[in-house]
Amino acid sequence: MTEFTKTDQNRIKRVPERGHYDRETIYRILDEALICHVGFVENGQPYVIPIKFARVEDSIVLHGAKASRLLKHVEAGHPVCVTATLVDGLVLARSMFPHSVNYRSVVLFGRGRPVEGEQEKLAALKAITEHLIPGRWQEARLPSRKELNATRVVSIQIDEASAKIRMGPVLDEQEDYALSVWAGVLPMQEVTLPPMRDELLQEDIPVPEYVASYSRKRT
Amino acid sequence: MTEFTKTDQNRIKRVPERGHYDRETIYRILDEALICHVGFVENGQPYVIPIKFARVEDSIVLHGAKASRLLKHVEAGHPVCVTATLVDGLVLARSMFPHSVNYRSVVLFGRGRPVEGEQEKLAALKAITEHLIPGRWQEARLPSRKELNATRVVSIQIDEASAKIRMGPVLDEQEDYALSVWAGVLPMQEVTLPPMRDELLQEDIPVPEYVASYSRKRT
Repeated sequence: MTEFTKTDQNRIKRVPERGHYDRETIYRILDEALICHVGFVENGQPYVIPIKFARVEDSIVLHGAKASRLLKHVEAGHPVCVTATLVDGLVLARSMFPHSVNYRSVVLFGRGRPVEGEQEKLAALKAITEHLIPGRWQEARLPSRKELNATRVVSIQIDEASAKIRMGPVLDEQEDYALSVWAGVLPMQEVTLPPMRDELLQEDIPVPEYVASYSRKRT
Repeated sequence: MTEFTKTDQNRIKRVPERGHYDRETIYRILDEALICHVGFVENGQPYVIPIKFARVEDSIVLHGAKASRLLKHVEAGHPVCVTATLVDGLVLARSMFPHSVNYRSVVLFGRGRPVEGEQEKLAALKAITEHLIPGRWQEARLPSRKELNATRVVSIQIDEASAKIRMGPVLDEQEDYALSVWAGVLPMQEVTLPPMRDELLQEDIPVPEYVASYSRKRT
């Protein structure tokens, strides 16, 4: 099934034509986003925590310290919401009302489970590292058993999801087009600056190509 | 009071030396972030929604359509969590385990109320616009009464808040410094690309200075 079912939970109600339910669109946004924000509930109180992640097929994997309250809560199977947002630009209209942001966001719902087997844990950590920076898993030292044991890994099956996308130009009221106000889109992008070598790095080690050419853009 | 009180809710438990509770640090991160993620609970289910915002003194203001489920929920006074995150770079260590992200995030807790008086509503909308792009409120057409009436505005008093900041270099295990693996920080930044004029813009209107020199960096 390539589309998520529309439910009362994932349906885009405001400006429904901006809603998308196909896996291709949703997964492309998830794969491009560097981090996500995970929402969970404890004693009726919502919490929203930013965290690294990766998508593995129809699941989201997260990792962190054994003692992480977030991860312990997620692996216990409580309902969670994971949101990833990419900002593409500011939409500057001639009047205040239609000012907007061009963005692509995904909101997904699911429940977590622990990832415990050594091979499955390594596969999840590889996915998270390769999500952060493709090519790195081949180069850096892999986790020792001791490090693996100190790491909690959880997986969230994506039960429901939708994307919301606002793109394109300013949409002003007809009578406002006559105003002498600059209007347009100011595109924004998350870019890298030149890599900063670690001070203790051996001098003869060059910057790897996957660092030098790093980009969040996904094809 | 310049510091938020540490409670079980806002205290940074993982790597506590990265926690900050002073208003200056917390408000600088909020003011630099373009958007925030708002978490709320309905029927035990968490939701996390990205949205534009502004900080006005010790409150967060949000706006949107009258029918917005998020805003109706917030103004009813339910507990909400607002999180803003700035990504500053990738921390590429010699081994996988200490790979990290340099970031600055704020997690805050509070309850909302409606903003209804015309003047207070306009003040909130001005704050949101000036948060998005300083200088714009002076130039674009202000909201009509009809547009104001179609807009829901809410304010969330910040009851508890903390910031978490990871900055600086790679921290490898002592024995890993001998590895022939490139290590360092890949800085990241949200930048603007050249402004795109609206196709219907009158030809003699130049790009305003506050658009041409736009930056999220706050001093």
